[in-house]
Amino acid sequence: MDIGFVGLGNMGAAMAANLIAAGHTVTAYNRSHDKVEALEGARPARTVADACTGEVVVSMLADDHAVEAVTFGADGILAALPRSAVHVSCSTISVALAERLTVAHAEAGQQFAAAPVFGRPEAARAAKLFVVAAAEPEVLRTIEPILDAVGQRTFVVGSEPKAANLVKLSGNFLIASVIETLGEAMALVSKAGVDKEQYLEILTSTLFGAPVYQTYGGLVAREEFEPAGFAATLGLKDIRLVLEAGEELRVPLPVASLLRDRFLTLLATGGGELDWSAMGALASWEAGGAGPIR
Amino acid sequence: MDIGFVGLGNMGAAMAANLIAAGHTVTAYNRSHDKVEALEGARPARTVADACTGEVVVSMLADDHAVEAVTFGADGILAALPRSAVHVSCSTISVALAERLTVAHAEAGQQFAAAPVFGRPEAARAAKLFVVAAAEPEVLRTIEPILDAVGQRTFVVGSEPKAANLVKLSGNFLIASVIETLGEAMALVSKAGVDKEQYLEILTSTLFGAPVYQTYGGLVAREEFEPAGFAATLGLKDIRLVLEAGEELRVPLPVASLLRDRFLTLLATGGGELDWSAMGALASWEAGGAGPIR
Amino acid sequence: MDIGFVGLGNMGAAMAANLIAAGHTVTAYNRSHDKVEALEGARPARTVADACTGEVVVSMLADDHAVEAVTFGADGILAALPRSAVHVSCSTISVALAERLTVAHAEAGQQFAAAPVFGRPEAARAAKLFVVAAAEPEVLRTIEPILDAVGQRTFVVGSEPKAANLVKLSGNFLIASVIETLGEAMALVSKAGVDKEQYLEILTSTLFGAPVYQTYGGLVAREEFEPAGFAATLGLKDIRLVLEAGEELRVPLPVASLLRDRFLTLLATGGGELDWSAMGALASWEAGGAGPIR
Amino acid sequence: MDIGFVGLGNMGAAMAANLIAAGHTVTAYNRSHDKVEALEGARPARTVADACTGEVVVSMLADDHAVEAVTFGADGILAALPRSAVHVSCSTISVALAERLTVAHAEAGQQFAAAPVFGRPEAARAAKLFVVAAAEPEVLRTIEPILDAVGQRTFVVGSEPKAANLVKLSGNFLIASVIETLGEAMALVSKAGVDKEQYLEILTSTLFGAPVYQTYGGLVAREEFEPAGFAATLGLKDIRLVLEAGEELRVPLPVASLLRDRFLTLLATGGGELDWSAMGALASWEAGGAGPIR
Repeated sequence: MDIGFVGLGNMGAAMAANLIAAGHTVTAYNRSHDKVEALEGARPARTVADACTGEVVVSMLADDHAVEAVTFGADGILAALPRSAVHVSCSTISVALAERLTVAHAEAGQQFAAAPVFGRPEAARAAKLFVVAAAEPEVLRTIEPILDAVGQRTFVVGSEPKAANLVKLSGNFLIASVIETLGEAMALVSKAGVDKEQYLEILTSTLFGAPVYQTYGGLVAREEFEPAGFAATLGLKDIRLVLEAGEELRVPLPVASLLRDRFLTLLATGGGELDWSAMGALASWEAGGAGPIR
Repeated sequence: MDIGFVGLGNMGAAMAANLIAAGHTVTAYNRSHDKVEALEGARPARTVADACTGEVVVSMLADDHAVEAVTFGADGILAALPRSAVHVSCSTISVALAERLTVAHAEAGQQFAAAPVFGRPEAARAAKLFVVAAAEPEVLRTIEPILDAVGQRTFVVGSEPKAANLVKLSGNFLIASVIETLGEAMALVSKAGVDKEQYLEILTSTLFGAPVYQTYGGLVAREEFEPAGFAATLGLKDIRLVLEAGEELRVPLPVASLLRDRFLTLLATGGGELDWSAMGALASWEAGGAGPIR
Repeated sequence: MDIGFVGLGNMGAAMAANLIAAGHTVTAYNRSHDKVEALEGARPARTVADACTGEVVVSMLADDHAVEAVTFGADGILAALPRSAVHVSCSTISVALAERLTVAHAEAGQQFAAAPVFGRPEAARAAKLFVVAAAEPEVLRTIEPILDAVGQRTFVVGSEPKAANLVKLSGNFLIASVIETLGEAMALVSKAGVDKEQYLEILTSTLFGAPVYQTYGGLVAREEFEPAGFAATLGLKDIRLVLEAGEELRVPLPVASLLRDRFLTLLATGGGELDWSAMGALASWEAGGAGPIR
Repeated sequence: MDIGFVGLGNMGAAMAANLIAAGHTVTAYNRSHDKVEALEGARPARTVADACTGEVVVSMLADDHAVEAVTFGADGILAALPRSAVHVSCSTISVALAERLTVAHAEAGQQFAAAPVFGRPEAARAAKLFVVAAAEPEVLRTIEPILDAVGQRTFVVGSEPKAANLVKLSGNFLIASVIETLGEAMALVSKAGVDKEQYLEILTSTLFGAPVYQTYGGLVAREEFEPAGFAATLGLKDIRLVLEAGEELRVPLPVASLLRDRFLTLLATGGGELDWSAMGALASWEAGGAGPIR
């Protein structure tokens, strides 16, 4: 398929490479052009509009602001994309922006699909992402080969795109909850002399044998917060979006509120560029230990 | 081995049955004698002291109070147990009581081991519990066949018994955290129209594929809070013990604090006898939904 | 002075009446015109622009959205106000909007002052409001007679208007904190049989003898949540604005986070139109009592 | 009246001096005898029992443990006090201990009254304490001259002594809430450049004009945490007792939970001996500022 790809960060570059590897023609755009040149097998796009000439354009960007910039600008996706073509948004964006994009593309005679992904850059490189998708059924049929090429499995959660974004955001909330609660538990047992890595082994051998505990538990146990797979500033952004969705829907989320304060503390004390798992060191800091920032 | 067993609740009866099935001679005591009679193959004990004539006595009771009652009473384990024999405490008790038992048994020339278990009654019946044990090495060697008969794996976390209790308590804290955070996430996505069981499938197929999410997520998604595998009153007790351990060690545990308030709400509104997973329905209640109590 | 007044709600109507009583010429605008007619001694304005012909226009509206609507619209304050004239914003608006208004009016050659007020409608009618003002010194000199006519005292907190808005928002945070903490304390002592009104008398006779305890404590003790002096929906709005300011400044505010969840619970369970003091009944509801909604 | 007085700390010494000044005969006991000698006009007691020969004995000690030690010991109040004499407990103790003392003194044919006080050492010296008392009416009549001599006003909250202790504890919860919320508000506005002392003046001139805001707000604004009028360790103790009372009565207290974590952080990071108002510096610490410990 003839696919445009906008956004070649850690995640996007890996996903675009997998689309190329799967035999698709990929025209790639990134704000700093060197990343475009680094993507082997891609056709370089000098502008967002250059990447909007095929049947589908995929965007994979850091936040609402970046997606708004490439979509609504004078030379943006909305202006350049052909009628009936599809904009697939894989970014973790707000429910509100997903709604706005759905309406805007419909008004322009285009299609919109939300297909946010679960997985860190390693998983993106291995085409092992999990994709949560929502769009009209015929749109989903069109983009199926794309989603298959970047992930190991796709879950369809409805025909309204925003549902996929809400599921993704709630998943990030659950990951951050695991970081925080492991951080608290490890601060507790380690202050009593139990080894943090052995403790994690007990957890993951018993009831907690899931990748989220293995991955984030390992980072917290080893205090390995650099380089960031996902920066704390992005973690804060996602928790904010979860809280905004909760406010819109009138759903109080007390643990999410606590996570928001934790991320703010991390940022205020200099840890914004650390991996978001650094939040898991705050309980230890409050308990008189070293904390995420040395 | 000649083993006494004190406490034939849901968990204890299953564990004692597995000891009998493994070929041990089990003399069993329970406050209400009908449970003793229901345990096939056991020798009945009319008093706690009757169960303290062998090399080892195992206690599996609901809380500190019950363990204190059978241990420190006039006719209790401490008074009746032969010198050099071992008291294995499998109950989820406080760190403070574990310390007190360690000292008391040592003063009486007896041994003490903490061996709390992870797993619900189904796992106990299937001898699939996970055991977290701490005691002096020679004591652990003595009780190894017992632990092997009731569980699928034993983790040794040190020579001080209380470390095992702290790990167990912290594990229950993490389980309760999963109940709460899943409850919040499900309240959020279901109010947006996403099906709770499909949502759980996405979680458990991706990063959250652990028994704790499957088991408790299923209970929360189906609002299946009766019969209680582990009553909310016991959940509150364990969170209180975690917080007390945290206070002793000077470790603030904000999520545990929140869980304590959640359990209190559940109890105050009539849900004390429900399964502790009923806490996962409070977020939905606050969001205007039905809540755990109909 | 020749003053325009935009927004004749409970607060605005009382403030405008006091300006008239102080001898000023007031040209008043309100979205529903009947409130303009009800204001004795005012010149009626049919449009926002009609109210922008004097030296000063005062706006007193419910939220950011309303202030944006009357300011940035085609026929709005920004377009209609003469050069050098002053827009005095008494509304409780966000720090971000205060910044935006400061810039916009400066670019249009106009002046902007923030002068949010403390006090409920009774205080507004009695010209007993407290005004927190921030603007350039010469602007403050211009508007001094206006502020004197509506309040009993003015506090100047700097030359940047947004500082006044932040102080006002933080004050509402502190009021909401008093409502919540009194609600918790009263739920506790009343469940032990202590009379809530006597309890409040003890508090206000000792260390807590301030209007905030008398006023809100009385409402909570008597469960007197209608009619609303300040609706719960507005309380939520203000707490959200405090949290946004905290996020911008990187200041975690855990009690504010808790208040946000409380207000969401109140709204989700049907209490959005009650007085914000109804939040003080949620602790009692969680404790098994009646709750704000019967 | 012939009064025994047990406990000559900052508070007790001042109260005993006021009893002497009011013309009572005071036989005083303190664990370290030098404080007894420093109390002018008192008869020295070498043992607790020596202080229990009159109609009334007053105890004013730091915590439950100290009250238990002087009451239940071999040579304690319970053993030494004449039948019909009254034990007046002014200490801030748990509801549970108040119940236990009520029962124990009744069984010994003695009387028990709870009369905890509000006020810092300055107020105790000036006989300006507020007393919250609960006991049987005839007991209250007996001790009225004592309460009048130490305080400016007595509030009677019932005939069950524990009600007075609950009111006192809840009052300390409200004070700690003011410290925390002022700490958060000051962290916020001061990071935006508003002066903390001017901010406090605005608050106390408007809705917040109560001693609790003046006293604790001043300490927080000036970061004046030494010498401690009331140490953080005692603050933690009282919040724990409030939470225990809440647990017993099934009343969730989310702000109290947060305060408990705050105090633990303060203690874990070295601030246990600072004044409890030092908790009000933690918000600023989390926001990247200096924190209570330099």
